[in-house]
Amino acid sequence: MIVEVITVGTELLLGQIVNGNAAFIADALAGKGFDAHFQVTVGDNPARMEAAIATALERADAVIITGGIGPTPDDLTREAICAVTGRSLRFSSEWAEVLRERFSGMGREMPSNNLRQAEYPEGAELIHNPRGTAPGLALSHRGRWIFALPGVPREMAGMLSEEVLPRLAEAAGTSETLVSRIIRTWGRSESRTAELLQDLYLRSENPSLAYLASAGEIKVRITAKAADVGEAERMIAPLSSEICRRLGPAVFGFDDQTIELRLLELLEERGWTIGTAESMTAGLVAARITLTPGSSRVFRGSVVSYASDLKERLLGVAAETLGEGVVSARTAREMAEGARRTLGVDVGLAVTGSAGPAPADRPVGVVYVGVATPERVETRRLQMPGDRERVRVYTTTAALHLARLGITGVWWNR
Amino acid sequence: MIVEVITVGTELLLGQIVNGNAAFIADALAGKGFDAHFQVTVGDNPARMEAAIATALERADAVIITGGIGPTPDDLTREAICAVTGRSLRFSSEWAEVLRERFSGMGREMPSNNLRQAEYPEGAELIHNPRGTAPGLALSHRGRWIFALPGVPREMAGMLSEEVLPRLAEAAGTSETLVSRIIRTWGRSESRTAELLQDLYLRSENPSLAYLASAGEIKVRITAKAADVGEAERMIAPLSSEICRRLGPAVFGFDDQTIELRLLELLEERGWTIGTAESMTAGLVAARITLTPGSSRVFRGSVVSYASDLKERLLGVAAETLGEGVVSARTAREMAEGARRTLGVDVGLAVTGSAGPAPADRPVGVVYVGVATPERVETRRLQMPGDRERVRVYTTTAALHLARLGITGVWWNR
Repeated sequence: MIVEVITVGTELLLGQIVNGNAAFIADALAGKGFDAHFQVTVGDNPARMEAAIATALERADAVIITGGIGPTPDDLTREAICAVTGRSLRFSSEWAEVLRERFSGMGREMPSNNLRQAEYPEGAELIHNPRGTAPGLALSHRGRWIFALPGVPREMAGMLSEEVLPRLAEAAGTSETLVSRIIRTWGRSESRTAELLQDLYLRSENPSLAYLASAGEIKVRITAKAADVGEAERMIAPLSSEICRRLGPAVFGFDDQTIELRLLELLEERGWTIGTAESMTAGLVAARITLTPGSSRVFRGSVVSYASDLKERLLGVAAETLGEGVVSARTAREMAEGARRTLGVDVGLAVTGSAGPAPADRPVGVVYVGVATPERVETRRLQMPGDRERVRVYTTTAALHLARLGITGVWWNR
Repeated sequence: MIVEVITVGTELLLGQIVNGNAAFIADALAGKGFDAHFQVTVGDNPARMEAAIATALERADAVIITGGIGPTPDDLTREAICAVTGRSLRFSSEWAEVLRERFSGMGREMPSNNLRQAEYPEGAELIHNPRGTAPGLALSHRGRWIFALPGVPREMAGMLSEEVLPRLAEAAGTSETLVSRIIRTWGRSESRTAELLQDLYLRSENPSLAYLASAGEIKVRITAKAADVGEAERMIAPLSSEICRRLGPAVFGFDDQTIELRLLELLEERGWTIGTAESMTAGLVAARITLTPGSSRVFRGSVVSYASDLKERLLGVAAETLGEGVVSARTAREMAEGARRTLGVDVGLAVTGSAGPAPADRPVGVVYVGVATPERVETRRLQMPGDRERVRVYTTTAALHLARLGITGVWWNR
């Protein structure tokens, strides 16, 4: 089954926003085994919206349109669908009532503009949007499906998984279910990971294997097609175990489990707290840890010691150590130990390095990470490629992973 | 002149990466006054690439293709252009030599695969890629332009501005030049900003006005069409002055001048250093300040005091103050003053707030920012909408802007 995504919005054509919706929907569709051949972006222009929808209906089994279903006059997706399918626009007084209640629930009167959101192409179903006011649309037209969703990412995402994907799965008409499991790893390159799994990859058809790389992490996705979820999971289990065995401590989580969540879990299991001492990353590691709600249970604070004298004064790094080199294993170690004392935490995580542009005396991208726990202190040297921002972001991810290894005490040679 | 962007890559159709290239090119084209009606994404599939290119040539004056010009067998943009334009593929031994030298300059032998990058559709010009190995292509075909650029963002971006935009400007054939100036503001909503400039907006045709909102900042773009740059700038100047006069201290910079850069400038003018004391933002403000190379000249460090006792112990916030409320103007003030002492900086910038999820006793999104300078201490209360991540990011931006106001001593009522 081929699904085409059309994202509507002049702000996309002007480059004012990046098209996160297209990527999100594409990822969700791929995860469910649907094919995508084209993605099209079009402005809030009736003729061009109609052209995009008509073309998509010729070459795909289903079309998902995001954007253009708001209340303002330049929201034209409803009209464009009518024009392409030769249907007239109807008005649902039932939905007008739903919308009115939604507004009165927020203590506001509904602007008359919003009545447009109770309009729908004849034969279409209005679908609920629990996160916003604009209902979506689902229309079966001559054996094809047309869906219209809001452009607001979180409204779109909710309706996609709750309303669109189930309808597509049913329309795909197979009695088969597609189940995916993602094994998340860090510490090896994609090619090295692929090498370790090559024989599995070559003979994997169902379940199948795929690799996804992002910001230094490598995900291995196992996808199984089966009559039901239980059977698919039984097919995935042995392959998943074998992959985990081969990849060893590089594996840190499954599916949606981020390194931040895993770290939180490891710390809570031990009743430990954490704090960071950061130089080059200047707070990014702390900011990543606290991205997760609930992190305040384990995270106490940080010292960002950009200036060398603060490394000495606030973290107790020896002047002699700094004299020998601010970017060094010894500085990282003393910063990590200093974080434990100064912040009163069990785990001190330290980063010192040079993100560039290159000063005369230090190579860019050389980073030392230190992890001090009640049980041990470890440091690691990393060489990060790329520009300043990339070095900082990849280092932040690496620091979180090295904290995991420091806490569990399982280090390995890549 | 209408330009269509085609981004090639199966990883885009699978949602493995977000299409930053399309947004980047769209923004660059809009800035130069070119129109865009469609953006199309297609996988590494010959027939579909050909269809996308053929359609684009029917409805646009120029087509920019990114991706598919690498050395591997699934890089098929060269072949697709040949198929659509009915041209044959040629080989440039001159360019083969250029490529070979490029590789030997990196101390490597050129893989034979890379010889494919010396191939070009008959009549096309190979264009230099100083940041990578894949040369681009520029082809004038029956009054239309076709450009092929690499998919690697920084390679693409460089070639776009150095090679593609100048050719497009020449092809646009007018003797007119388009010049834009962006006035960057913070502190007022887009609608309030538009209200203050409404009469200017209504009568602005050339120069024209546009509003762009991003992460709490509002940009006002003035675009003038004129015979040459000098004349365009003379047309922009009086309008720019009038807008700055009306928007007052909300204006913080022009064109590419970010708030980080402006802050650096203000601090260097005064010979002041800065440090942050962060609770809710947990290092994000420090990370933003240090995004800019050279920030180490003014930024010394931070204390992230997530745990309350660290606010007391490391920043000297009074126990009594904390007892009255961790999220309060008084806490923000004492944190800012504490940052000055603890970090030995001239300007202490403090953030305390609640990013959610909501604890029983505090409303989410309430934030206090404190700014302590050698001359004054100010605090401001902000109410930030959105989820945890949005609250943190918008607060970070707000804190940088409030630091600017605290340093210059110019506060105003919105």
